Parts: sequence; C-alpha cells; structure tokens
Amino acid sequence: MKKKRTSITDIANALNVTPSTVSRALNGGGKVSEKKRLEILALAKNLGYRPNPIAKSLLENRTHTIGLIIPEFTHHFYSRMLAGIESVTSKAGYQLLICTSNEKQKQEIKSTHALLDARVDGIIATISKMNDKFEHLQEVMDSGTPLVLVDRFSEEIETPYVISDDFNGAFTAVDFLCQNGCRNILHIKGPENLSTTFNRFMGFKEALRKHKIELNEDLILESSDPNLIENIRSCLKDFQIDGAFTYSDYLAFEIYKVANDLNISIPNQLSVIGYADEPISTYLSPTLSTVNQQPFEMGVTGAQYLLNKINNPEIELEFKNLEAKLVIRESCMKRKLQIQ
Amino acid sequence: MKKKRTSITDIANALNVTPSTVSRALNGGGKVSEKKRLEILALAKNLGYRPNPIAKSLLENRTHTIGLIIPEFTHHFYSRMLAGIESVTSKAGYQLLICTSNEKQKQEIKSTHALLDARVDGIIATISKMNDKFEHLQEVMDSGTPLVLVDRFSEEIETPYVISDDFNGAFTAVDFLCQNGCRNILHIKGPENLSTTFNRFMGFKEALRKHKIELNEDLILESSDPNLIENIRSCLKDFQIDGAFTYSDYLAFEIYKVANDLNISIPNQLSVIGYADEPISTYLSPTLSTVNQQPFEMGVTGAQYLLNKINNPEIELEFKNLEAKLVIRESCMKRKLQIQ
Repeated sequence: MKKKRTSITDIANALNVTPSTVSRALNGGGKVSEKKRLEILALAKNLGYRPNPIAKSLLENRTHTIGLIIPEFTHHFYSRMLAGIESVTSKAGYQLLICTSNEKQKQEIKSTHALLDARVDGIIATISKMNDKFEHLQEVMDSGTPLVLVDRFSEEIETPYVISDDFNGAFTAVDFLCQNGCRNILHIKGPENLSTTFNRFMGFKEALRKHKIELNEDLILESSDPNLIENIRSCLKDFQIDGAFTYSDYLAFEIYKVANDLNISIPNQLSVIGYADEPISTYLSPTLSTVNQQPFEMGVTGAQYLLNKINNPEIELEFKNLEAKLVIRESCMKRKLQIQ
Repeated sequence: MKKKRTSITDIANALNVTPSTVSRALNGGGKVSEKKRLEILALAKNLGYRPNPIAKSLLENRTHTIGLIIPEFTHHFYSRMLAGIESVTSKAGYQLLICTSNEKQKQEIKSTHALLDARVDGIIATISKMNDKFEHLQEVMDSGTPLVLVDRFSEEIETPYVISDDFNGAFTAVDFLCQNGCRNILHIKGPENLSTTFNRFMGFKEALRKHKIELNEDLILESSDPNLIENIRSCLKDFQIDGAFTYSDYLAFEIYKVANDLNISIPNQLSVIGYADEPISTYLSPTLSTVNQQPFEMGVTGAQYLLNKINNPEIELEFKNLEAKLVIRESCMKRKLQIQ
C-alpha cells in the first residue's frame, strides 16, 4: 500500500494546533508566532508534506502540465519534435507528460484518457496510423482542453495544426531527379490511410507531369507489401531504373541493399532520394539525399499554438504547413557533373 | 478557461433526482427504475460525464498509471527499453506517463514531482548523467511510491535495479580483439560520473591484463574532449593502432570517418567494436561490431520488478545484471581469416 499523503490535519494533530494555524504558517498569511511557525515548517519538512496538487490546481484551474501523444520514438523525427516542444514548454514553466500510441488507436484513446485524468492544461498529439475514430479527440475538445495536432492531418478534427508540406517536399525531390536526367523513377509509398503518404505520392506524380514523363504503375511499390524486397529487385532488373524516391530514408536503405546485391552503382547508375533526414541518411555510404521536414520547428510551432490557445481559448484556429527542404548528398548524380 | 467537469450533482439537478440516485444508476447498485436509469445514462453521455479519477483513485488508492523518467529518446536504446516496459505494463492494465530529463538533474527533479502529483502507482527511472543529488528519489521512496532504477547504478539509492553487465560486455569485446591479434588498442571513454563509463573502462583494462598487454595512457581518449577528432587522428597516425573499442557506436563512427580520411582500411588494418548495438551499427559500411545490452529485456525486467513491488511492498530488493552480448559484424578482422 502506498503511504497516505501527509495532510495539514496530520501536522495540526501532531502539534496540537488547528489545521488553519498550520495552513497559515505554511502559506505565510495571518497571525502565527515565529516560534510556532518554525516548528510547523520543520515538522512539515520531516513528514514530507507537499501541497495537495489537486487542491492547488482546483484553485487556479491549472496544473502546468501539457500532455503529448506521439506514435513512437524509434524514428528520430519524433525525438527532434519533442526537443522542439520542450524548448518552448519548459521556458513557459510547463512540464510534459508523454504517452505513446505505438500507432494503435486503442492505445491512443487510453493515453488521451490518462492525460485528461491527470488534468493536463492542453494536449499536443500526432494521430496514429490506424485511426478511423475520432471521438476521443472530440472529447478532449468538448472538455475545454486545448488540442493541437502535429505532423498528420485529418479532416475530421477542427483544431490548430502544424504539418509539413509533403506535396512540395516530394515534388521538389522528384523535380530534382528529373532535372538531372532521371526518366525511369521508382517510388515506394508509405503506409495507407496517412495524409503524408497521399501527399508525397501526389507530389511525385506532379513532378513527372511537369517533365512530361508518363506514370508507369509498375514502378510504384507499396512499402507494406511483404514481397517489397523482391519487388524492388524485379524493378531494378527489369526496368532501366535511374532514379528512386522513397517515402522514408529506411525504405531508401532497402534500395541500397538490393542495388548493392545487383552491382548497381549509386549514384552513377541510380540516384536515390529518401525522406525525413533521419540520422541513417548520413551514416549510409554513399550518404543519402533526403527531404528535411524541420521536426524541431514543427514542435516549436505546435507548442506555441497550444500555449496561445491555453492563454486565449477564443483565438482563431492557427494552421501552419512547414516548408520541407531538399537535402542533396552523395546519392544523387548531378547533371552538371555529368557534362563536365 | 477550461470547462468545469460534469459532476453527478449536475446530472441530478438536470433530471430533478437526488445525486445518490444518479450514482446508483451509473454504478449499477440499488433500486432505480429501468426508465430512469436509461434517462440518467443518456444524459451522462451527452454531458460527457466521466467518473472523477481522483475520487476513484482515492477509493482504491491506485491510479493504474506508472511514471517513467528517461534521459532522452535520440538513442535507440531508450526506445527499445520503453518497448520492453510497455510490453509488461500494458498487459497488466497500466498506462505509462513518460517524462524526459535531457540528462539534467533539475529537469529530473521536476519530472519526479510531476509524476508524484499525477499520483502514479510507481516510477521507473534512469538517473541522468549530471546527478549528484538524490533527495528527489529518496522523496519518492519516502512517499511509499515504489521505485525501480534501470541502466545506471548509484550507491546512494537502495532500490530494485536492472543494469547491464558493462564490465563483462567490455571485457568480452576487448578479449575478442586481443585473441584476433590486436595489440595497440584505442579506447574512447564515455561521459564522466557514469557507472557505465567506469565499468566499461575496467572491462577494457582487465582484458589487456589477461593478454599481458601494458596499458598505454596515450591510447585512452575522453569523448567529452572538444579535440576528440584531432586526438583520434593523432592516435591513428602516430601509433600502430590495430584495434579500437569505444563507449558507444556513435564514437566508433567518428573513428570510421578519421580512418577513411587517412586511408586506413577497416577491418584489414584496424578492427573496431562499438557499444550498444544502435541501428547505426548496421547502416555503416563495413557494418560495425558492437555489444548488445538487451534494452528490451532490461525494460521487461524493470517493469516486472516494479509490478512486484507495487503488489508486495515488503518484497526483498531485486537486482539484475543483464548479460551484454558481443555481436561481431564486418568491422573486425578474424584470425581464422588471416591464417587462411
């Protein structure tokens, strides 16, 4: 059994004074003799007395905690976003309570309830991949707890958002490949049901259209396909693939491995661009070109939107579509070099 | 302002019944007509009524939440440990509330208080690098909240521990290098003040002693030294370094880069072993040999120890020193190959 929390009454009983005397001594108000005050403070310290957080938070209706729901931490993206959020919240005197959903809706719902029960002043969340119900998020808003969604967008929920411009991120990457001579470009798509997957694919298609390259459905692979590696191998063998754009840096690594097996040289025969600028992209050899989504900035802006909403619930809905920046490293052939 | 939480009294007033009738209808006890019961349930749902978590937890003195304090999530080690903890706690019906310390003591203390204020049933923590005070952890134990420490050990705190056998992990790695012909072995130490840094260095020294290799202080580098890269370069140039054992996989990557600059071939001229089996070790070329600390197992065992202590506070202090496993990949020369 947990020990009972030391109360003001416990201290009062031990010293044979009234609870209100103890309260005045601890809070510094009203008349208490200096001797008695010191006696009360000493005992309070000895008994490990700490003000009841609930009573305190009921008084000011704030707990100075913020809830964060994030899918997982194996992607560096989320730890960078966390760092951005913390850089704002800690300066503003808020403590973060973090829950992970592991991309499962059930876990996301549980997390939401745990944070509401902990009476957080607001919630920042990235909805999980497997989301098709939104009642729990509606519940957050109905309770008057400010909610900001980051990274992934859903039309079902009207609340402040900070997302990354996936369409233009993908467009810029594939446009770069085309400008540098690629004509047979492979794309590996992300998980179904995600706005990010859809928008990156749209950006890919738009870049092909700009360069008048017909879309070849055979060169569009699904990352969830259990035969993905075999499919990459077939593509690299059967088509004259000279470029690849993948939903993530990890998927680009799969292309590296197959290309290595087939003795296809990156970037001489095949230019590759991943997505997310995870640390892996600098560890690979050759280093991987990728698209940086500015996760730290995403966290900063999301936290600012939340604080704005906490401090002014009537504020208009804020929305930011952060620029996604192309980072060219060794994995891309540049036409300038080819001409030289 | 946050909206006031809907109370049983609100529902009672709206329907012109007594609060105890509402309570009985919601909790299923006592006499309430079926019609009235359905009416009460419908209104409770409409008003978004949820049982007061504090009242509920006071009743059973449990919140079914567990606090987790972790330095950061940029190391894969901690997200694997988290996965291990979650695999146990979620099955047992506990929700995790996670705080990060960013290796700062002040932040660790704040996190501890936030979790105590959220009335968690227990805390699992990895103490931060910069810790020299332990009152906050003592406070956790004094409050009767079970505490389990993982990954890093401190003699100051008597509580259940799950750590990794760093001494033998390091010993096995360096013993392997020596057995395979290395004689001039570089070591890069970890952060000061950490038990893990100390124990890996001790394991390194013990392996040298076993193979009757004298310790050369010039080959021991500090990772915190701002001139680290320059120091690695000097070592590789001035001494006939044929082996390297580093506190982390990331430090091994620094050696890769310098070796590459100096045209020193790994593993032909230099065998390298890192520590922690982070994903980077499989992305590097050649793939990096390393020591796996079983972070998932560490999380599982830590969570089990905590549940044991929650369910039986009088239980004896449990302690586990998990085996650290040597993982040999391409970065090490094997004598067998040399002989062939």
